[in-house]
Amino acid sequence: MGVIVQKYGGTSVGDVKKIKSVAKRVICEKEKGNDVVVVLSAMGKTTDHLVNLCKEISTNPSKRDLDMILATGEQVSISLLSMVFQECGYDSISLTGFQAGIRTQGPHTKNKILDIDIKKIKSHLQEDKIVVVAGFQGINENGDITTLGRGGSDTTAVALAAKLNCECNIYTDVEGIYSVDPRLYKDAKKLDFISYEEMMEMSSLGAGVMETRAIEIACKYNIPIYVASSSKDVKGTYIKEYDKKMEEKVITGLSISDDVIMITINNILFRLDNIATIFEKLARENVNIDMISQTAPLNGKVNLSFTASKEDLFVINKAMDEIKSENSEVEVVVEQNIAKISVVGIGMTNQSGVTGKLFRLLADNGLEFRQVTTSEISISYTIDKKDKEKTVSLLARELDL
Amino acid sequence: MGVIVQKYGGTSVGDVKKIKSVAKRVICEKEKGNDVVVVLSAMGKTTDHLVNLCKEISTNPSKRDLDMILATGEQVSISLLSMVFQECGYDSISLTGFQAGIRTQGPHTKNKILDIDIKKIKSHLQEDKIVVVAGFQGINENGDITTLGRGGSDTTAVALAAKLNCECNIYTDVEGIYSVDPRLYKDAKKLDFISYEEMMEMSSLGAGVMETRAIEIACKYNIPIYVASSSKDVKGTYIKEYDKKMEEKVITGLSISDDVIMITINNILFRLDNIATIFEKLARENVNIDMISQTAPLNGKVNLSFTASKEDLFVINKAMDEIKSENSEVEVVVEQNIAKISVVGIGMTNQSGVTGKLFRLLADNGLEFRQVTTSEISISYTIDKKDKEKTVSLLARELDL
Repeated sequence: MGVIVQKYGGTSVGDVKKIKSVAKRVICEKEKGNDVVVVLSAMGKTTDHLVNLCKEISTNPSKRDLDMILATGEQVSISLLSMVFQECGYDSISLTGFQAGIRTQGPHTKNKILDIDIKKIKSHLQEDKIVVVAGFQGINENGDITTLGRGGSDTTAVALAAKLNCECNIYTDVEGIYSVDPRLYKDAKKLDFISYEEMMEMSSLGAGVMETRAIEIACKYNIPIYVASSSKDVKGTYIKEYDKKMEEKVITGLSISDDVIMITINNILFRLDNIATIFEKLARENVNIDMISQTAPLNGKVNLSFTASKEDLFVINKAMDEIKSENSEVEVVVEQNIAKISVVGIGMTNQSGVTGKLFRLLADNGLEFRQVTTSEISISYTIDKKDKEKTVSLLARELDL
Repeated sequence: MGVIVQKYGGTSVGDVKKIKSVAKRVICEKEKGNDVVVVLSAMGKTTDHLVNLCKEISTNPSKRDLDMILATGEQVSISLLSMVFQECGYDSISLTGFQAGIRTQGPHTKNKILDIDIKKIKSHLQEDKIVVVAGFQGINENGDITTLGRGGSDTTAVALAAKLNCECNIYTDVEGIYSVDPRLYKDAKKLDFISYEEMMEMSSLGAGVMETRAIEIACKYNIPIYVASSSKDVKGTYIKEYDKKMEEKVITGLSISDDVIMITINNILFRLDNIATIFEKLARENVNIDMISQTAPLNGKVNLSFTASKEDLFVINKAMDEIKSENSEVEVVVEQNIAKISVVGIGMTNQSGVTGKLFRLLADNGLEFRQVTTSEISISYTIDKKDKEKTVSLLARELDL
């Protein structure tokens, strides 16, 4: 008899009817003879509702309290699912993050899992219970309730699977991993398999289906992840170790994000210390900096651009105000109408010419890009948001995605 | 510098605007130089909303999960209040039941506070923080989240005041304790003081403002409770030790409850064991039995009536079905259109004639009662719910309440 971790996202538990459907799927797995640990997100609209309440109080509410209030969302959904199991005659136990032994550390709203004390869950499984765990949350060493930031429930699920050394199924509102977001390119192809490395690039570049951290953990512990629809019974996508037998393609996918802002600081007096100070300020506010580009010094001055997540806009603006007041000569531009497009493929590592092909495609179609950065297995561009759809269609078609 | 515990109920924190008003009151107390521990209930409609979700799943949802889901209500309100304090520049900390060290025991949804580990709260107070504690909830020795049942937030507040040896203010949607519920009798008089004993009788008899358990704790530790309006700035009522200087009245108040059902079991074969079995069954389901009356045996059979809270209707019906199947001769009647009216007064202990006067009043006005029970300081009647208003007005007027 095996163990399996199943994770269901917010739209999959959006109302009681949907929670009952989730219960059916879990019971089906249980009836196959498997022990099941279910990880849930908050019900669809709960988080938005709670965030709106907070916004009535502050544009930047205290983060410890934000974690405290957001954690209630999953506590509601796990209680309801556990009630359904018991109503159907199955023994179950609902566990919040702290009850499930999920110890975390880091700044509030962006904690990372430090470790999971898995004993309690194992003993509930031995008692033949279905274990229902609140995703996205944990407890830090001070006993504060913490949350794991975006995609945190995936991280919870994969970390539990790693501790239980079992497969992790992510049930969601898409049918698997696509080469391109099917909402943006309707002919996008669903992948049967994708390697951890490619998926990490896709995620960190904004593909949206799963967050990078969850994939990192799966990769580290070699836990296979199966991503599939929570409502339809169609084949999904396995995220697993790279395997020569996987179809050889230079480019696996395209990832698009418009949850991006681009900050440009012009006329910085070129001293290394000046640049470091800027990034230190942002690091203190736990801002994740993404694409960075800097011009070569001219007349002792440099221009610097970087991208970040829209959710950090408030603290970034604050930091920029400080920088301006400390350096009267600099000019800061924060652009919000930006999209980021990345092409990803593990095949790129030993294929040349991809970069040239992409630049040519964009140039021939009159598509301007603002920044470009590259990694071993990806190339990313920031473009004007209005060009997003045209660029996506062009690249998806030309790259056969 | 003193400490004070302030408790605000569900309607007082019904929306963000009201939560901001609560914050103002607390800050006002803090500015007087007092340390403040605030205990909150869930926001007005939250509990109803959660209970409705559960009802979509089961008429009798698993109690551990019910506790788990209901406890989120206070977790939301404490987070929001703490955010307001910090937005106003006051340091504060929100604590759930388990974080506040509130250890409980007993059956789920009806736990009792076993003890409070007050160290954590004291250390936060020493750091000059406003401490915001989730009422109504705690944690049991298994690490399960528990709730304290009806009026549980009052119990939390008074228990914290007992541990901190300070006064407890209960801010609510009424202006104090009245001799009669002012919604039922508009000329009811607000009391300046009431003794613990009288308040316990009033509460246990259904006066609604505070639950008995909270008063019991206050009485045991001699903690003064001040009940007042959370919105208006008018004088409330002190609940405190009986004092000869308190106005000498035979009857202090009238308490009315229609959250009552009356169960009558006819034709029980009169063996003591039979009666005991009935109450044992109900005790196993944690049903609180209130007024009990039993006829003298006739032809070896007795009739038994008792009242209980409407919220236990489901389990009582289940128990009655068992009793009928085990004793084919008995007949069970469950009546829901019942109200309970009690007159309370510490002066009754050394005043005779009150009972006679009451019976005469009811008889002269054609008001029938179903059951009557008495205690040292109270007399209670169950009546038909349709007679409630007439009876209340009559007694309030005649007894000068």
